[in-house]
Amino acid sequence: MNITLEQAEKVIAAAKQKATAIDTKMNIAIVDAGANLLAFARMDGAWLGSLDISIKKAKTARYFDMNTGLIGELSQPGQSLYNIEHSNNGLITFPGGIPIKNAEDVIIGAIGVSGSTVENDHAVAEAGAAAI
Amino acid sequence: MNITLEQAEKVIAAAKQKATAIDTKMNIAIVDAGANLLAFARMDGAWLGSLDISIKKAKTARYFDMNTGLIGELSQPGQSLYNIEHSNNGLITFPGGIPIKNAEDVIIGAIGVSGSTVENDHAVAEAGAAAI
Amino acid sequence: MNITLEQAEKVIAAAKQKATAIDTKMNIAIVDAGANLLAFARMDGAWLGSLDISIKKAKTARYFDMNTGLIGELSQPGQSLYNIEHSNNGLITFPGGIPIKNAEDVIIGAIGVSGSTVENDHAVAEAGAAAI
Amino acid sequence: MNITLEQAEKVIAAAKQKATAIDTKMNIAIVDAGANLLAFARMDGAWLGSLDISIKKAKTARYFDMNTGLIGELSQPGQSLYNIEHSNNGLITFPGGIPIKNAEDVIIGAIGVSGSTVENDHAVAEAGAAAI
Repeated sequence: MNITLEQAEKVIAAAKQKATAIDTKMNIAIVDAGANLLAFARMDGAWLGSLDISIKKAKTARYFDMNTGLIGELSQPGQSLYNIEHSNNGLITFPGGIPIKNAEDVIIGAIGVSGSTVENDHAVAEAGAAAI
Repeated sequence: MNITLEQAEKVIAAAKQKATAIDTKMNIAIVDAGANLLAFARMDGAWLGSLDISIKKAKTARYFDMNTGLIGELSQPGQSLYNIEHSNNGLITFPGGIPIKNAEDVIIGAIGVSGSTVENDHAVAEAGAAAI
Repeated sequence: MNITLEQAEKVIAAAKQKATAIDTKMNIAIVDAGANLLAFARMDGAWLGSLDISIKKAKTARYFDMNTGLIGELSQPGQSLYNIEHSNNGLITFPGGIPIKNAEDVIIGAIGVSGSTVENDHAVAEAGAAAI
Repeated sequence: MNITLEQAEKVIAAAKQKATAIDTKMNIAIVDAGANLLAFARMDGAWLGSLDISIKKAKTARYFDMNTGLIGELSQPGQSLYNIEHSNNGLITFPGGIPIKNAEDVIIGAIGVSGSTVENDHAVAEAGAAAI
């Protein structure tokens, strides 16, 4: 089971709508089940540095099949996954990456959003993932 | 002058239409005037390895403001730019990357296409760039 | 459709058997449909430098769904894909990488073999892929 | 003294058995005395992101001839090896990497396991290393 480009475009459209609704400018990345980039959009005026972060968030969410923020809790100093970010050519472990599931609850890809506060990033990612 | 996301989406839509018309499955990447990824789409079933190539073609076209195939002629053994591909974390210098110009003939970004023969890649990139 | 670990282990066993039969020592890598490493074995005394080559061959075969040697013919100086090896963090485009298909002729992964002449590498890869 | 492929396959088989017994899906990597990958297996459904982590754990354990978790205690903020993870193209310093010793207590390689909690990762690595 793998996300299609048509599904990915729906996810990006929903994420862009949410981003506009909360007055933010986002980088939005979609990866497929193999964690490879499938679709991407950078809204006009969005931070350039968030380009790479959004892709890494999407990959991180699919690499471990969970929201990126959960990994970030475990990668803090003294926690069990401290400095896991050094793996896989760089993970991003703060909120904004979410697995995308199909109707049967199977993970078919992931979305990564970056461009504002992590709360806003997460909200936009959630709006995107909910479009499937 | 910089390409907008809306323009990039038009370019991708035109490129996808052309790709379908000639029965190919393409990776399509758009970079802005700063050579940074702006939008991307991988058609279902397109080669995975063409993901990176399409992005590198778009960057290469904007890095030097010319079609990628032209650079490839100069990077052959014995030519003036031999092995220029080693720069910029990897260039792709065969056809499929084209600068995108606005109505005033100013370069505002570039498109890179990969997924078939270089002739098909170039034709799809041209169809995309012509949408502006 | 994705190759399973059990299938990959059968592929490696068949490849090792062939390698021994022709008196070679091989690095054998299997990637899944997403081009991610699934299984690997380095025979005792095999070249260390072939470790990375075998993995890159397997990835290259899956990236473009064809034998690596075919790409190598097109990547020669003056050919259409000259210096494609600079993409995807390094391709290997001489023989030894082969897509793995299931009974329905669907590509489910790829094998990459390195450790001897490219003819021997290819023969061992073929023996491995034929085990499915 | 160097671990053989046959020994590495025994280690992987024991690790897989333990992983199944505690209902986990693991990435299992074995490196030799030179810290180079010797054998690898990713169990069906195991996290993709754990692929790289399991290899880095095995390398880290052999680089310093100790369990990875011990290094992680010293790499915390304020400790003597703070951020040692930046070296060697990325170390992983939480539990799951263990040196492999022969009957004479000589280190001949290392195992790295990733795919569950660090406690489970370590338990599976221990079961694997104990097979020699």
